[in-house]
Amino acid sequence: MKIEDIIKNAGEQSLNGTRRGDTEEEIIFIQDYLKSARKIIIPTGNKEKVKGINHVLLQFGLPEAEQLPINTSAADLNRLPAITKAIMAVDQCKCDVVVARGRLGVPGSGSMLVITDNKGRILTATTSPPHVLHKKDLETVVGEEIEQALNRIRLKRIR
Amino acid sequence: MKIEDIIKNAGEQSLNGTRRGDTEEEIIFIQDYLKSARKIIIPTGNKEKVKGINHVLLQFGLPEAEQLPINTSAADLNRLPAITKAIMAVDQCKCDVVVARGRLGVPGSGSMLVITDNKGRILTATTSPPHVLHKKDLETVVGEEIEQALNRIRLKRIR
Repeated sequence: MKIEDIIKNAGEQSLNGTRRGDTEEEIIFIQDYLKSARKIIIPTGNKEKVKGINHVLLQFGLPEAEQLPINTSAADLNRLPAITKAIMAVDQCKCDVVVARGRLGVPGSGSMLVITDNKGRILTATTSPPHVLHKKDLETVVGEEIEQALNRIRLKRIR
Repeated sequence: MKIEDIIKNAGEQSLNGTRRGDTEEEIIFIQDYLKSARKIIIPTGNKEKVKGINHVLLQFGLPEAEQLPINTSAADLNRLPAITKAIMAVDQCKCDVVVARGRLGVPGSGSMLVITDNKGRILTATTSPPHVLHKKDLETVVGEEIEQALNRIRLKRIR
């Protein structure tokens, strides 16, 4: 089964009223997609962010991500800054997975870390409070975020 | 200061490289906006969802939300189902705040609860795992989600 078929089937279920939430098979598809990824990209000018995320990816047995050093500032002018950063990366390089981290919504709405596939479709994500409230360093907080994002689709540390 | 000015200023800071993350003032603006809301809407056909969310809103001293009983199934055919549900509500009724809950992204990606203002701009949000993984009842899980969404912008229970 390809993700296109999963999306088509789930869409039909929603429209005919038979959808009963995410299935085991759909979750396993996302897990397998991430586990088989060869090129993971992080669009950011910030090396700390890459370091914090890669530290956790390796503990999950996933490949180290490459930094895509583009200026993502313009994403902040969008309604969905973090998701927009992910789409910018998909549009500017070939990759299997994007991990993007930025503002969730309006200024003051805190952060979102989002993991997409090669077309920018959202596989998992997590949110965290504005930095001014928790004051943790960036490397630590992005590590916590990606761990939560992977845990919520039942991927676990293997080392 | 209006939210339009906050967004304009933050956008200028991002473009000229002086943005240093969310500010206390921006967070307080979101808190005050929510605390002064008179009409909160939940677009859903599911009364359990409304009950679970309202139980928590009252504990935070916020007004009880009204159910907007529209068919939101079509949102699942979008890339961002939960956010799309919120926008559907904004477009179909007058309100100060929308609380929408639905799928985060692709089938298997779990849930997102999102709180927007009267124009659909995202104020806060949280994600939770697919139901098949946690098996909690809907009323409990949406209660936990809205509590997390409010906590992350430092709103607390008052009763």
